[in-house]
Amino acid sequence: MSDTPARVAVIGLGSMGYGMAQALRRAGLDVSGSDVVPDNVARFSAEGGRGAASPADAAAEAGIVVCVVVNAAQTEAVLFGPDGVAAAMPEGAVFVSCATMDPEIARRLAARLEATGRHYLDAPISGGAQRAAQGELTILASGNAAAFAAARPALDAMAAKLYELGDAAGQGAAFKMINQLLAGVHIAAASEAMAFAARQGLDLRKVYEVITASAGNSWMFENRMPHVLDGDYAPRSAVDIFVKDLGIVQDMARSQKFPVPVAAAALQMFLMAAGAGMGRDDDASVARIYAQVTGTALPGGTASTS
Amino acid sequence: MSDTPARVAVIGLGSMGYGMAQALRRAGLDVSGSDVVPDNVARFSAEGGRGAASPADAAAEAGIVVCVVVNAAQTEAVLFGPDGVAAAMPEGAVFVSCATMDPEIARRLAARLEATGRHYLDAPISGGAQRAAQGELTILASGNAAAFAAARPALDAMAAKLYELGDAAGQGAAFKMINQLLAGVHIAAASEAMAFAARQGLDLRKVYEVITASAGNSWMFENRMPHVLDGDYAPRSAVDIFVKDLGIVQDMARSQKFPVPVAAAALQMFLMAAGAGMGRDDDASVARIYAQVTGTALPGGTASTS
Repeated sequence: MSDTPARVAVIGLGSMGYGMAQALRRAGLDVSGSDVVPDNVARFSAEGGRGAASPADAAAEAGIVVCVVVNAAQTEAVLFGPDGVAAAMPEGAVFVSCATMDPEIARRLAARLEATGRHYLDAPISGGAQRAAQGELTILASGNAAAFAAARPALDAMAAKLYELGDAAGQGAAFKMINQLLAGVHIAAASEAMAFAARQGLDLRKVYEVITASAGNSWMFENRMPHVLDGDYAPRSAVDIFVKDLGIVQDMARSQKFPVPVAAAALQMFLMAAGAGMGRDDDASVARIYAQVTGTALPGGTASTS
Repeated sequence: MSDTPARVAVIGLGSMGYGMAQALRRAGLDVSGSDVVPDNVARFSAEGGRGAASPADAAAEAGIVVCVVVNAAQTEAVLFGPDGVAAAMPEGAVFVSCATMDPEIARRLAARLEATGRHYLDAPISGGAQRAAQGELTILASGNAAAFAAARPALDAMAAKLYELGDAAGQGAAFKMINQLLAGVHIAAASEAMAFAARQGLDLRKVYEVITASAGNSWMFENRMPHVLDGDYAPRSAVDIFVKDLGIVQDMARSQKFPVPVAAAALQMFLMAAGAGMGRDDDASVARIYAQVTGTALPGGTASTS
């Protein structure tokens, strides 16, 4: 590295990307940012970042381009669409892809970018907006040595925990999908159990106390079920996220002829919640679907808050 | 309490009951024991316990009868079958029922026993054989004040954590079923995820490391998946246990017209494992079913060990 700060472009200044851009700036890096929402860019500029008019503008002098968008289609558009970054990035620069996606698509995007002389790091993230802003994300990364080396200053600034999971794109994405399979099933199971407990007339705070100290506990039960106890479905993470992520799991599994009946059942419950108008509500809203269907009372009622 | 040690009868000297009897004796109580397997009784006598020829013999002078059998049918037989304890127990004695069962059955057994002037404590347990022997079980208890008072010396000796969950039989059982719903789903989900990860060619030890530090973690993933990593399906807890317990969940849910699609999908996986001859193998064997069906390699292969 030279003495001048590395330029890092962040594409997507939503709740995750904005925080990551802040963490990168705090680490002393020179950060440009782009977003489809002009207000997000204006706010970033007002706080001292380099607001850019397009992904291509943001990436033009960046050795690292961090892409924090929602899915594979948006990632592909950021790379290869109009005003995309692939042609704008300096040769030898690295594209750090943070969206959750099918590993097969990650491999395809990487191959296409690498053919132009740029590097691709498959780097899905987890941890939420607060940890993003603190530079304390978990990053599940895979890619070749050159991609890791080029991305290192940004990874160091963004991650509390960096897993290096393989030497090719797709492996990071695959690990992320295994986590999302489990996380989605556990939210649906927690919702099913909590609503069923309400149907038995059990004291739900006591259920929470007992389960979190027992073999039935999960990270998601412990994290999400307080939303049900409080009847508070303001979105921390939305139902639609798991409609998407368990959908990717189904697509992967189907194309590989691998049955995933438990994840399939969980996906149906997220689809019911989204279909009932709760797609943008907190993902613990799945509990409200069980309650609505069966006429079971939950704290705060079961109406959609969207 | 008088100065003479309370007599406690333990009915069922299997891996859990034997340990509980040891813990009761270590607490200074006078313990009689009965089991359908004569060798278990002989071993108990050899170690200084009062071996009894039948449940009724064990219960004859006991103020507390702890019943540690497999299911509701066995519990009913211990209470009201030939040589059953109900008629043998002193009036005012308490029956402590530890088997996992439908809350409705617990209520029925309690009502029938209470009509004879004895007490009934609904007290399902969790924690495994080792914690049973150490007197460190978790007990999910409900019953009236007289039942709790009468059972207290045994509860103190057997439990590290005693939840008092209500003043009537059935509530302890209901809490236990909520835990079993979650535990069963989490084992099936862990198995599905781990076999799917193997299908992606991921390093399974790395998967374990990443998931146990991530939002996809569960108590069961963390506890059971080492069996898959080691290819070791010697039973710590058998597939048949969750065939039974998720079966009870289905029976409860069906009779209450409450859909539990995620638990239903999990039950089908345990049924597949049992149907494939793995009923007595470790419950992590569900992972072997996914692997067998899809021709995916797991450590140690996928053949039944029963």
